[in-house]
Amino acid sequence: MSTAPNFDQIIDRRGSGCAKWDAMEKFSGVAAEDGMAMWVADMDFRSPQVVLDRGREMVEHGFFGYTTGDGGLFDAAAWWMKARHGWAADPAHMFTTTGIVNAVALCLDTYTQPGDGIVLFTPVYHAFAKTILGADRKVVECVMPIEDGVYALDFDAWDAQMDGSEKVLILCSPHNPGGRIWSRAELEAIAAFAKRHDLLLISDEIHHDLILPGQKHIPMNLIEGVTDRLVTLVAPSKTFNLAGLHTGLVIIEDDALRAQFARRKEALRVSSNIFGVEFATAAYSPAGADWVDALTDYLDGNRKVFDAGINAIPGLRSMPMQATYLSWVDFNATGMTQDEIARRIAEDAKIAVNDGPAFGTGGEGFMRFNIAMPRAQVETAVDRMTKAFADLQ
Amino acid sequence: MSTAPNFDQIIDRRGSGCAKWDAMEKFSGVAAEDGMAMWVADMDFRSPQVVLDRGREMVEHGFFGYTTGDGGLFDAAAWWMKARHGWAADPAHMFTTTGIVNAVALCLDTYTQPGDGIVLFTPVYHAFAKTILGADRKVVECVMPIEDGVYALDFDAWDAQMDGSEKVLILCSPHNPGGRIWSRAELEAIAAFAKRHDLLLISDEIHHDLILPGQKHIPMNLIEGVTDRLVTLVAPSKTFNLAGLHTGLVIIEDDALRAQFARRKEALRVSSNIFGVEFATAAYSPAGADWVDALTDYLDGNRKVFDAGINAIPGLRSMPMQATYLSWVDFNATGMTQDEIARRIAEDAKIAVNDGPAFGTGGEGFMRFNIAMPRAQVETAVDRMTKAFADLQ
Repeated sequence: MSTAPNFDQIIDRRGSGCAKWDAMEKFSGVAAEDGMAMWVADMDFRSPQVVLDRGREMVEHGFFGYTTGDGGLFDAAAWWMKARHGWAADPAHMFTTTGIVNAVALCLDTYTQPGDGIVLFTPVYHAFAKTILGADRKVVECVMPIEDGVYALDFDAWDAQMDGSEKVLILCSPHNPGGRIWSRAELEAIAAFAKRHDLLLISDEIHHDLILPGQKHIPMNLIEGVTDRLVTLVAPSKTFNLAGLHTGLVIIEDDALRAQFARRKEALRVSSNIFGVEFATAAYSPAGADWVDALTDYLDGNRKVFDAGINAIPGLRSMPMQATYLSWVDFNATGMTQDEIARRIAEDAKIAVNDGPAFGTGGEGFMRFNIAMPRAQVETAVDRMTKAFADLQ
Repeated sequence: MSTAPNFDQIIDRRGSGCAKWDAMEKFSGVAAEDGMAMWVADMDFRSPQVVLDRGREMVEHGFFGYTTGDGGLFDAAAWWMKARHGWAADPAHMFTTTGIVNAVALCLDTYTQPGDGIVLFTPVYHAFAKTILGADRKVVECVMPIEDGVYALDFDAWDAQMDGSEKVLILCSPHNPGGRIWSRAELEAIAAFAKRHDLLLISDEIHHDLILPGQKHIPMNLIEGVTDRLVTLVAPSKTFNLAGLHTGLVIIEDDALRAQFARRKEALRVSSNIFGVEFATAAYSPAGADWVDALTDYLDGNRKVFDAGINAIPGLRSMPMQATYLSWVDFNATGMTQDEIARRIAEDAKIAVNDGPAFGTGGEGFMRFNIAMPRAQVETAVDRMTKAFADLQ
């Protein structure tokens, strides 16, 4: 049984224990009663029917005991990587973790020592720096310049910045919060940079499926000459709205790197969970693929509405999005302080967003808006923003 | 909505991806077609209705995004520990892990160094030794003597055995595979032993709810003077048949030990999953308690049938069970080799069991039988065992 997704349907998630709505007031001061949740990166859309059907079956069966393992998920993921990304990933090269952040933490634990430098191209997903600091490693920020309105890579500056203490580069591809897809030439240059400075390259590709129409994501694993220093992280969390399942995949083609990771994972005995494995397996399927195609079309529509509205406000600019459902809005031309921008969005527009500086250097004057919500709500958000910044007209 | 549990109902789990039935032939050579699965420690009973109801609600809601955290589970677990075990555990002292084995691994990683000695009272749950070895620590076996037909503690021998390299004692309480509940006097003596040799005491109490009628489990945390070296591990996995959810709880009263654990857990970013948290929260409730009471009554009935049948076979003896659903059968008086015992059980009786020696020294000549199955199947198992060892009559 399959049902066409209805992304326009507004479903109240309040009181369900979801962070996005139920922790909103605590986080941002915006009450869930009349506020809008555009912060936490999950979607206000139900997971695909193929996932819900599997869930119903599992609950009806009523047994949640020990399972035969993650093999079925790895086979499904291998099919998905090939079908969707042209990457013939080997199931035998895969591991589960409790998500991308756990995967990053396990990589740092496996491949680095306290005090080692971990390079981030900032601004970037805020949990990376937190994880690096939590593990007593050092955050090395390589700040991305903006060229032609989007983030660019500045290897001349970054080469000069390296001091030899750096051991790892964590790449976010596609880029959160900038919404960029890195081109083949850029990926090659990143691989060369990692090689030049002898960095392990952790490629976080969690947004690889949320590619807007006309765009194409290239897995780092397909770049020549990089697999001997590459660990790729993917997950069904963003694609199918399953973050709470805490199931991520680590894919390592290199035998030596894979053996090292396997040994640490075995020592720490981090296990996958039955719903995470079964839901991901169900999702990595032709039915899941159809749903994602419909989803990305819908997100593209949201993006157009959001960008048109935001870019019509003098001094505001939404960075052109090629992937993800996260809009990165530049308020710098307003001349306002971060506090004033935050105050207007929270108090006047009553929208909860993510504060730009949380993403590291380069995030000043920016705010991240999650537009994965029914279109009518995107329109409401645009209206509220227009009114909150009406004096700029 | 609540439905009285029907433990007599035989439900086919084959083909569901459960290890117990679907990995049985690979593990033991016993075909699922006409074999009986009495190995993996989960139950052939559906989880309680209160859990299934929560599952249905969750799937109907259809969102599995980021959650507000584990706080609700900790509150429910605190209620449960108080109501069921008289232990006023503080929710602020709790952590989630991906299960007991992950919890043990995290403890070893937090509190010990490679090469440190980890004491086990053997025979004991086989995953402990595996985890210790996987983490490059040293297994120190303190072999339990059998007195009056049950396992006893021999501190004189064990005191003489310690050489100062031991850092941790992992206690299994109630004891798997012996099915014993440790008395207050024994727990006090164990605590004194840990103190005498300056051992961190990890108390695995995962079977604490599976207490047969008339018996009483005492949490180690209630023993005087031990909390400054104590880490307690519990989980809803055994109690409510939720092992696949991979959700365990670590409870640490001591501030310094808790801070150390928190720091390592933060560095490794091991996350709980939405179904594990929600199912456990639903289960740690009055409805869950009623179900457990009905379950333990039923298991007690199974135990009586199983013990009567097994003990009627000359040379076989089932260790008197006070807790768990694991029967530990001594074949030593048959004079048979382990291989011959295993062959008869697998080939003649067509039953998959756990081999005694896998539980460490002291397990020779034993086999572990999981009797958490409909009563009619226990009767069938007894018949098959009786026939397989008929020549002993």
